[in-house]
Amino acid sequence: METRQGIATKEALDLQSVDQDLVQKMVYDALVWSSLHGLVVGDRSVQRSGKVPGVGLVHAPFALLPVSFPESHFREACELAPIFNELVDRVSLDGKFLQESLSRTKKVDPFTSRLLDIHSKMLELNKKEDIRLGLHRSDYMLDEQTKSLLQIEVNTISSSFSGLSCLVSELHRSLLIHYGERLGLDSKKVPGNSAVIQFAEAMAKAWTEYNNARALVLVVVQSEEHNIGGQVIAVVYFRAGYAPTDYPSESEWRARLLMEQSSAVKCPSISYHLAGTKKIQQELAKPNVLERFLDNKEDIAKVRKCFAGLWSLDDSENVSKAIENPELYVMKPQREGGGNNIYGEDVKETLLRLKKDGTDEDAAYILMQRIFPSVSLTFLMRDGICHKDHAISELGIYGAYLRIKEKVIMNEQSGYLMRTKVASSNEGGVAAGFAVLDSLYLT
Amino acid sequence: METRQGIATKEALDLQSVDQDLVQKMVYDALVWSSLHGLVVGDRSVQRSGKVPGVGLVHAPFALLPVSFPESHFREACELAPIFNELVDRVSLDGKFLQESLSRTKKVDPFTSRLLDIHSKMLELNKKEDIRLGLHRSDYMLDEQTKSLLQIEVNTISSSFSGLSCLVSELHRSLLIHYGERLGLDSKKVPGNSAVIQFAEAMAKAWTEYNNARALVLVVVQSEEHNIGGQVIAVVYFRAGYAPTDYPSESEWRARLLMEQSSAVKCPSISYHLAGTKKIQQELAKPNVLERFLDNKEDIAKVRKCFAGLWSLDDSENVSKAIENPELYVMKPQREGGGNNIYGEDVKETLLRLKKDGTDEDAAYILMQRIFPSVSLTFLMRDGICHKDHAISELGIYGAYLRIKEKVIMNEQSGYLMRTKVASSNEGGVAAGFAVLDSLYLT
Repeated sequence: METRQGIATKEALDLQSVDQDLVQKMVYDALVWSSLHGLVVGDRSVQRSGKVPGVGLVHAPFALLPVSFPESHFREACELAPIFNELVDRVSLDGKFLQESLSRTKKVDPFTSRLLDIHSKMLELNKKEDIRLGLHRSDYMLDEQTKSLLQIEVNTISSSFSGLSCLVSELHRSLLIHYGERLGLDSKKVPGNSAVIQFAEAMAKAWTEYNNARALVLVVVQSEEHNIGGQVIAVVYFRAGYAPTDYPSESEWRARLLMEQSSAVKCPSISYHLAGTKKIQQELAKPNVLERFLDNKEDIAKVRKCFAGLWSLDDSENVSKAIENPELYVMKPQREGGGNNIYGEDVKETLLRLKKDGTDEDAAYILMQRIFPSVSLTFLMRDGICHKDHAISELGIYGAYLRIKEKVIMNEQSGYLMRTKVASSNEGGVAAGFAVLDSLYLT
Repeated sequence: METRQGIATKEALDLQSVDQDLVQKMVYDALVWSSLHGLVVGDRSVQRSGKVPGVGLVHAPFALLPVSFPESHFREACELAPIFNELVDRVSLDGKFLQESLSRTKKVDPFTSRLLDIHSKMLELNKKEDIRLGLHRSDYMLDEQTKSLLQIEVNTISSSFSGLSCLVSELHRSLLIHYGERLGLDSKKVPGNSAVIQFAEAMAKAWTEYNNARALVLVVVQSEEHNIGGQVIAVVYFRAGYAPTDYPSESEWRARLLMEQSSAVKCPSISYHLAGTKKIQQELAKPNVLERFLDNKEDIAKVRKCFAGLWSLDDSENVSKAIENPELYVMKPQREGGGNNIYGEDVKETLLRLKKDGTDEDAAYILMQRIFPSVSLTFLMRDGICHKDHAISELGIYGAYLRIKEKVIMNEQSGYLMRTKVASSNEGGVAAGFAVLDSLYLT
């Protein structure tokens, strides 16, 4: 999730005008609703929380009211979901493209290098994935100045918050059913969200297609031990495995390789995983690359329209521009999860240092146009406390894809995730403590 | 809730034989289920818990699996619900009976005395409650030796756990859907439980009958401030008001009187409240008293059958018996909530002291036959920890009643509550930390 301070725009609701008593009532109701409906997470300040389920719970951080979002842009993002599902699938089949595009990244990023090694082994074995399951989330921001929907990234592994995002949409609908009249808001303008059900259905369908009634679904998670000796696995879902810390020793890499070699449906396969890297995102934005993977001209135009400016660091023209105007760029390393991006003056300094060093380290980064979303006043709820601040939002659209050889079983948009964060903070996700879960109010 | 150690009986499930790995899986799933479905309570060990909603949450204490219970006795208890609803209503209309029965209690119990004062004022004003709403819970234990269902008490005020009890039934059904085959248990044998919905419906109906679209429902709770100046109240629900500590000053008593004088539907009215006292329970058990309130002979027989032995302390014959065999009796003061009953040798000592003193203090107690329910091995879950112990259970049956003058709008059994506690502990409720929430498995 990335951000920056922008310009406040006209909202469906003027929060400044909302009566303080009404806010207090909504805060109270929203917190009670959270407890009753499972909109809860582990509270890190409580011992044993996260280690034992059911203890040390606190409401998930959320925005008290949904953020205004133009309906046309929401539809645009939804329509892109099946196209990106297809694009990821097509890219995943082009092993040469993946290996070549990531060849320089491989030299400087040991983690990507390990993933590419597994991918190479599969290419050598000529391993085919007949059943391919993708549970993706494509993230967007609405650029304030150009009024265009621009993609931040595609997540092809461990696309998170499909469960909690549905609950926040329900919470907002419930609050607007009760208080909408007094706020001048209509609960029906919060779009329905069934991400978690659609993802579960896709997984169930993949299991069904595997066609072994005794086979299991294996969920790979962080810090857990699972003994599955002798069992047949139909589907492997990677809730973990996207970060170097998920592989503390060689045994995790051996397990990943073993799973990739197996006949189980991997969500994601190593190819899907690699297709979701930032380097591939940047490569796809180059002229005539989308055309290699998509046939439909309209689809290509739609996808290209949502691409922000994306450049490799060997693009000297844009590197120079970024050194001149670093505030208009973000530098992104090939890393999942928040907290790794480089903003502002640091962009300039890093680019100048890399230029001077003249090593391959520049291949670890891509350069991206910085997006300036609109800023709106928001009530952010965390630890039972309501905090009013200027905030910006990022929309994620979930997509579910299931294919057996030439037959597409499922290719759909599957709900959404809205995350909102204080505008003055540069970046950070919900789990990292910077953002809150949100939903949208169509305008 | 009252108890004692009994004799272990044959269960639908032999817990000793359950595989430890399976227990661990069920424990994990049950704790996750609790977090996701709102089976949570405030964790007293966490600061701000209970003060701010949504923070400091922990799963409610629960039994991992439902307790075996004979279907015939469950049906018997369910059938009693509408009869007790009707009985409470009839008793509430007999102001003289309430005042006379409680006249000696009044002298020694300042709390009951204050309630009776309010009741007297209403009698003087000839105040009629046209709309009468009762949300009761009648509690039973199954006597092991006689195999009879015996009533512990009727709650006519703040009948608790209607919400959490439904969730525990759902949790148990969900666990049996997943693990029932391996346990040899059928999820359909856990009766459906919609207590919270039925109570909410009864309250909504009372509000509808009050027939003022702008009128509110007032919920009286502990340690909360509510400003409702100038509003019309249709229904007053007392979640608090049953304990002396709920009236820390004269202003709470003035508020209670004001509410009683108002035209709002009180749940309960002062008459309903008094009709639920232990002294009235004991008076109703006297020969020919039920006949004053109920017409149907079959109903009378059913109610009488569930009455345990109940005596006033001026019954010298039974007082002598209790001194001889104190382990067969319980002494109960006129107090709601657990922790006030007298058991075992203390019964003997207290009775001898009261005899010697010769004061009116004996009027503060009733004497009751001690019930010996069957003991079974149970997995009790608290604070994320599973504890295996011998336990006994108490079944509560909710009843909802709504009447407008001569017209009975609603008179139904409304779900159930099963509470289970370690057999070696004498008494105590779920909130007091002795018991866990449970459901039942019909045998």
